[in-house]
Order: sequence, then structure tokens, then C-alpha cells
Amino acid sequence: METPETTTPGAGAGLTLRRVAIDTWRENVAYLHRDCAVVRAEGFQALSKVEVRANGRSILATLNVVDDPALVGCQQIGVSEDAFAQLEVPEGHPASVTQAEPPASIPALFRKINGERLSRDDFHAIVGDIARHRYSKIELTAFVVACNRSELDREEVSFLTEAMVASGRRLDWRESLVVDKHCIGGIPGNRTSMLVVPIVAAYGLVFPKTSSRAITSPAGTADTMEVLANVELPFDRLTDIVRDHRGCLAWGGTADLSPADDVLISVERPLALDSPGQMVASILSKKMAAGATHLVLDIPIGPTAKVRSMPEAQKLRRLFEYVAQRLHLSLDVVITDGRQPVGRGIGPALEARDVMRVLENDPEAPADLRQKSLRLAGRLIECSPDVRGGQGYAIARDILESGRALSRMQAIIAAQGSHGFDHHHPALGALTLEVPAATDGVVIGIDNLQIAQIARLAGAPKVKGAGVDLLCRLGDTVRAGQVLYRIHADYPSDLHFARHAVDRHCGISLGTAAQIPQVFVES
Amino acid sequence: METPETTTPGAGAGLTLRRVAIDTWRENVAYLHRDCAVVRAEGFQALSKVEVRANGRSILATLNVVDDPALVGCQQIGVSEDAFAQLEVPEGHPASVTQAEPPASIPALFRKINGERLSRDDFHAIVGDIARHRYSKIELTAFVVACNRSELDREEVSFLTEAMVASGRRLDWRESLVVDKHCIGGIPGNRTSMLVVPIVAAYGLVFPKTSSRAITSPAGTADTMEVLANVELPFDRLTDIVRDHRGCLAWGGTADLSPADDVLISVERPLALDSPGQMVASILSKKMAAGATHLVLDIPIGPTAKVRSMPEAQKLRRLFEYVAQRLHLSLDVVITDGRQPVGRGIGPALEARDVMRVLENDPEAPADLRQKSLRLAGRLIECSPDVRGGQGYAIARDILESGRALSRMQAIIAAQGSHGFDHHHPALGALTLEVPAATDGVVIGIDNLQIAQIARLAGAPKVKGAGVDLLCRLGDTVRAGQVLYRIHADYPSDLHFARHAVDRHCGISLGTAAQIPQVFVES
Repeated sequence: METPETTTPGAGAGLTLRRVAIDTWRENVAYLHRDCAVVRAEGFQALSKVEVRANGRSILATLNVVDDPALVGCQQIGVSEDAFAQLEVPEGHPASVTQAEPPASIPALFRKINGERLSRDDFHAIVGDIARHRYSKIELTAFVVACNRSELDREEVSFLTEAMVASGRRLDWRESLVVDKHCIGGIPGNRTSMLVVPIVAAYGLVFPKTSSRAITSPAGTADTMEVLANVELPFDRLTDIVRDHRGCLAWGGTADLSPADDVLISVERPLALDSPGQMVASILSKKMAAGATHLVLDIPIGPTAKVRSMPEAQKLRRLFEYVAQRLHLSLDVVITDGRQPVGRGIGPALEARDVMRVLENDPEAPADLRQKSLRLAGRLIECSPDVRGGQGYAIARDILESGRALSRMQAIIAAQGSHGFDHHHPALGALTLEVPAATDGVVIGIDNLQIAQIARLAGAPKVKGAGVDLLCRLGDTVRAGQVLYRIHADYPSDLHFARHAVDRHCGISLGTAAQIPQVFVES
Repeated sequence: METPETTTPGAGAGLTLRRVAIDTWRENVAYLHRDCAVVRAEGFQALSKVEVRANGRSILATLNVVDDPALVGCQQIGVSEDAFAQLEVPEGHPASVTQAEPPASIPALFRKINGERLSRDDFHAIVGDIARHRYSKIELTAFVVACNRSELDREEVSFLTEAMVASGRRLDWRESLVVDKHCIGGIPGNRTSMLVVPIVAAYGLVFPKTSSRAITSPAGTADTMEVLANVELPFDRLTDIVRDHRGCLAWGGTADLSPADDVLISVERPLALDSPGQMVASILSKKMAAGATHLVLDIPIGPTAKVRSMPEAQKLRRLFEYVAQRLHLSLDVVITDGRQPVGRGIGPALEARDVMRVLENDPEAPADLRQKSLRLAGRLIECSPDVRGGQGYAIARDILESGRALSRMQAIIAAQGSHGFDHHHPALGALTLEVPAATDGVVIGIDNLQIAQIARLAGAPKVKGAGVDLLCRLGDTVRAGQVLYRIHADYPSDLHFARHAVDRHCGISLGTAAQIPQVFVES
């Protein structure tokens, strides 16, 4: 890029930086007053892309033109929260602004919009610009939609994944075998990671699990673990914990792992875009960046899961396997039953309660959560060269039943910083609503999407004790008036929203046993 | 949509409206404080889509979460300039905000993203939501990119055009023959409308010309006409002028003609998207909405024009003709020479000077502008049932040479409100820069894009007297040091930017006569 400091003396200089406390979520926005000399001199318009420089740093931002001098004055350049943080200088610091040269990868973006296949270098250029916040929301959306539409071929998916790994930090655990697990999502209550990590770590494999917070679900693993312990750990602390305990359960957001992924998700989410290529690149890039060498991937199928049929699941599996192989990641895909939520609780505290019950071998522990976790843990244990195929499950069960998994979890909780959660008396939302069966019948459907939505409206994950406590499972025979699930909330307005959603559709269908949809997966 | 006033009492109510003086250009943005009760209660996040209600009106907006109480307090809902105008209530008015139901057309949008063909109803639903500002920038971009990529078939283009016409007002001039002309753009100085309107109106056809202001060019017809007269006229006034004088030259922006087009352009422009389908829908919808029954369309071709070859021009012509026929618009496409700017002046006052010289039959009038205008006027005159094919040109020339076109223009200027422009002594930018030929040679190329950019940097169209005065034409033999063009500017910084652009590439190439690119168009 040219260096306008020398070529355009005086233009856009002489301004001071102002922090504008607006959270524009992943998009850098700059605010200039309409009467500011540089707006006129450079012909800036609303949505122009500008380059803001301060103290040797520079960022690209989308311009919003402001008419209120109380927001920014004619001698100021305002920047949104994210942008301010990237510049790393205090308010009032001298700053300059110029029309931005477009990011160097824009010609490649335009080729993708026009349906062309892109090269490895193209993907590296585009993803690099995205990770450095050089794309506007419009350009980001164009990239995401163009990739969705032209259905990236599998080699392009591997280029994209590789570029996303390269866009950020890559952790190196200095171990030849670093295991991880991931679920493609969509199943409420599915907190198997919090059981698989202590079991597999107790077995002795390195399992540095970093998780996300909920985006559209009622709880992510990081939200639920946060009920038990601190999850926002500096990287050095994380390393110590993994060295001492072979595992951790932390939030991945501070580690700069595949940062382009976070930016892309900011536009994929509102468009409900979750094409196979984008899903594979997102998941595998995060795992590669986290330093995993062996990954077990859970693909649930069911009528309200992300994947609805076995052929679809197999096609997705093959794409994951192709890309993993290109990136030298050992991958084991497990297709699971996704017809209903896993466990009883949906919401951070409710799920933490279920997890602790399983670890304590409590008779009230949800059997499905226990069973699924043992199965996944067994597959991971089989990554170990001295375990034969088929032996893993029994090893995992022994570790769980002997209490070694519980001890390991307690050690990890203590190391991360315990929050003193009492799962025997969990602090659940005090406002409750019990949802009864309208008629006698057999439970033939539990809608993952609707139950998740109800838990979310009730306050989860922000309100830790909020959510849904499921009191029935597929195939149960219920009587009219019997409670199907209980909603917990802290605030009357939250409970009101949840009740309103229940009134539209409670999420549970009754009928006869023959109507239960079947899925045929390995158990 | 549901009516949350009754279903969600108390939620998001009790707020007062605050105007946030930020120009977000076609996107409604709402600003809520992070600690505002409704942000917590509804789980709002940055970029959530919200519905803001005040006094029975409601708008959709994208949410920006704010941390500074000086911007919006916890009891306020801030809205950007555009959004504030749509609500039509004063600041401080009670307002409520709720999570917005997604626009009803979103499922159709998702189908288009996935490459499906859409129906007439789908296009009406999508375009209606777009015109009512119900789409976020992300959704808009997704629509535009999906339409670009899947290359709308020609019937879809006609559905899109029809829906865009229906999205706004449609003028009815109560005449069986209402003529209009349009150029697809890209040629600086091409102000033929300002000659064609007075000629054709003097002949007696109704020609209610509404034009745009410049978006990326140094002057739109509305900008240039504004040098001579007021162009922002209320619709009733416009009707009177057209009744009295058979023509007008006004800005179309106030008339609510194809409002969806304006919104779509806001994302097409930064992506440099100008696919044939989008161009056809944009142009024809505006003309249909303006009430035209007969349209002459100018498609210039040349190495730096929008259309670069005759086959490309013919393909575009056929698409225009198909859609026009479906919409019952009589269309006559004229393919013209677009190898260089038309006329001498580029910039509002410079172009107004050229136009008035042609109307006065001044020997200094640019011959190319005169010739092209007569040709287009002739084609329009031939729309009249009593004119034979081939007679139009001579009729137009007689009207121009007899001074009747000048009289009609003076009458229109007086009716719209004269600005007293003296074209014998036009107020051009006092700061000038003359750009000389570096060597002897023949002018073999004049780059439309670079000359337009230089005129824009010099201040056009905001600074009326700024721009470029071209002193050479393709094929001219020049000597080293001879002035090729003169730049006019009002401000030193503008002249500096223009000079900087000239230093990179002056826009004029010299060589030998044999190197002049040829285009073969009807003259």
C-alpha cells in the first residue's frame, strides 16, 4: 500500500482519536463529522472505506458520517470499540485518516463472486484480510454467499481451512498425541465434553479442550463449565494446567485461534448459512489451531438436528475426512442419535448438575448423557497406540465408575479456579413454569430447536440458573396433566417470553409408539 | 406480524426516542445502552434485528449496543438519521423496541442463496421488504450476490423489475405517449438529456425527465441541471411544468420511484456489481415508475466504457428488449461510440456550458455532443405515429437550429426556478492545472474512468465549478507541451489530489493514428 503520510501531506491529518462506545461486533466503524475538512477533501461518503492511522498502527474501517458535534467534532476521528482496541493508543492521540486502498484480495473476491475456483494463494490472501478486519460487512457477506453458492470443491475447502489456521496463532503442546472432540452442534444439553475430558485425561492422554460460548444455543460448553470454574484463563496458565492434569475445559476466545472464523461467523449466523464447506473449515481450523493431532467428531442425526438423514451424514463425513487428511489431522467420525436433547437439563446450571451427577455415578444421572460420553471417550482412548479397537469403552467406564474421572474433574476445577457450585443444591432460577401434557399418549417427538429456543427465552445462557429441565424422553408414556418439563427463570419478563413460546408450540409431540421416528446408528 | 404491545407488556416499553445524528446510508440502525433492561430481557446482541415502534409507526433496524450514556441512556432508544425520519415523531417521544420477527421473505432469500429459481411472488415479497428497509446490510448483500451468481434467467429479471416498479409510486401522466431516454452510464460529459428534452418537448411529445445525481461519476444530469435551475421540485409543481412545457429536467430522488433500487445500489456499488440482470431491473424499473411508455436507451461501447464489445452490447440489448416487452414498455436501443468522453467539459458547470453552447448554435459548441443529442432526439421523435423512420433526425436538427430548443430550455429553466447561470462567463474553479502532452503524437486513447476520477478528485460534483475541460479528441495530432486538458478546482487540497492522480496516469495516451481503437456503430 502507498503511504499517504508522504504523498498527501495535510490530508486527513491533524485529527485526534476519539473512542465511540458503540459495539459494532467485528466491524470496524469510523465516525467523522460531515463538516470535517477531510470528508470534503476526499469526497468521503457514508460507507466509504477509510484507513485510520495512529502511532504507526493502521486499521481499515467503514465510515459513518455524523452530524452531531457531541459525537465527534470536526477535529476528531471517532472509532468503534473494536477498532479502538486494535489501535492501542489512548483517546486524544493524534491520528490521520485517508481513503483506504481496497484490500489486496478484492480481485480474488470478485472472481469468487463470479463463480470461479480460487487457488490456495487466493484463499490465504482473502482469509488474511478478513482476519485483519480489512473486509467490510458487505464484502464479508459477499465472500460467504459466493462460497456457499458455488459450492467450494473439496480441495478449495482444504485451502480455506488451511488459510484459516494460518490466520491466527497455533498452539504447540509438544506432544505427539493431542486429542480433542467436537460436535457439529444443534442438540441441546449435549455436554459430553465435560465428561470426556476428565475420563480421557485420567487415562493419560493430553486433552486441552477449548470451547466456545453459546451463539444461538442455550449453553455452550464454556458457559456450562463456567458454572463450575473460571474458564477465561491466560494461555500460560492453561499450559500449566494441561501439564499438571493432562486436560482443561477453557474458553477458546482469548487464544487468537482461527480468528478469521469468528469474523466469518458474524455474517454466517444471521443468514443461517451453515454449508458443509463452511462447517468443515470452521471446525477443523479451530481444532488444528488448538494443536489437536487426533479428533473425534460427533455428527448427530434426527428430524430436528442439523443433519437429518444418514446419506447426508455420510456425505458430510467424507468431506471432513478429506480435509482432515490434507491437513494431517487424524479424524474419527461418530454418527449419533440426534432425535432429542441429551441429558435432562438445558441451560448452564442445569447441565452442570447433570454432568456432576454422571461423574458421581448418581442413580439420578441421565443415562443417555453417560452412555454417549463413555462411547466418545472410548473412541478417543483408542487413539492411544496400545489400546485395541473396541477396548476403549470398557476402559472409559472403569475410569468413570472408579471415581477417577470425578477426581480428575475436581482437580481441573480447582486448578482453573472453582466457583463453588453445589450440584446437590444447584442455584436454579426461582421462577418456574411446569408444562403439562395436554392428553394421554407416547412422546413421539422432542423438538431440539423449539426446546432450545424456550430455554434461551427463559434467560439461558446469560442467566446461569435459567433453562429447561426435561422430565420425559422419547418413547415415554405420559398421562394428561403430567409435567413434561419445567422452565426456570430469574426474571418475570424472561418467563413471560418463554411462556409465550410454549403457547405457540411446546416442543413435545404425543402420539403412539409406532410414530416414533427411528435412526439407526452405532450405539 | 404479532403485535407485542399486547403480548409482551412492559418489555421494551417505557423508552423515549433519541435521534442519533449518524448517517448510516440506507440502513436503519438502533442504539441501545448495554445496561438497558430490554437488552438483558430480550437477550439482544450487537447486530440483532429489532423493531422500533412509536406512535403507531414501526421500523426494523439493526442494533448497535452502546456503552456510553452520553450517546443513549438506559431509558432511551436511539435511531440513526434515516430511521428517525421514517418514524416521523419528535425526539423524546415514547417508543418501544422488541426483537424483530424476520421479514416474511427471508425463506425466499435463503432459497435464492441456495441457487433456486424464484417466482414472481417471491420477488414481490423480497423487493417489498427491501423497499421498506426490512433487510439488514447482510441480507441485502446476500440477495444481490445470490442474484449475480445464479445469473437470473430473463423471466426472473422481468419479475424483479416488475416488483421494483411496484415497490414505490408510479407516475401517471394521463397521456398515451410519454417518452424518456437513458444511458447505461460510464461516459463522462455525456449530457445529452439536457439537449434531447428541450428538442423533443419543443416537438410536442411529453418528456418528464427525472434524473439521478452522480454516484461514482463527476456529474449526473441532475447535478448539471442544478447549475441552471432548481431540480428539487415537489411532485405537483413538476406536473404543472410538464403540462405547460411538455418537459422538465428534475431530480428523481424525491418522487419515491422504485425505492428498492436505491437500497440495492447501496450494496451493489461497493462490490462493483453491475450484472446485466441488475442493470436492466434498475433502469427499467425507474423508467416504468416515472410513467414512460417509450424509451430510447443509449449503450456506449469502447475500451473504457461499461460495455466493451459489440457482442456484449447485443446480448445486453436483447435482455433489455425482453424485459421491456414483458412490461409493455416500447424500447429502442441505440448503440453508440463510447471510446472517449462526450463534449468538452466534465463537471457540472463545465457541462452546463457545453449544453448551452449547443442550444445557442455557438460555433464553439462540441460537435460530438450536438450530433449524439440530435440522433437520440430523432429516435424519440420517431416514436410519434406521424413521423416516418429516418425523418426524426432532420426534425430535431430544425428544432435546434431554429432556436426553438433554446427557447424551450429557457422556459423550462424559468419554470423550475432559474439559478442565473451565465454560460458566457461560467463560474469555473479558480485554481487550475493544465496537463500538457509529454511528447508529440496522435491521441489514441482517452480513459473515461481515469478522466472521471480526476474530475471527481478536483471536487466535482460537489463543487459545481470543478472538473476537467478537455482540449483534445481521439485522433488529434498534438505537440509536446500542448495542453491536453485543464483541471478546475476551488480548493488547494482538491487540486492536490487531482494532480496526484494525473501523476500516476493522466488518462490520455499518445501514439500513431493506426493505434486508435475502432468501434463500428451507426452514426
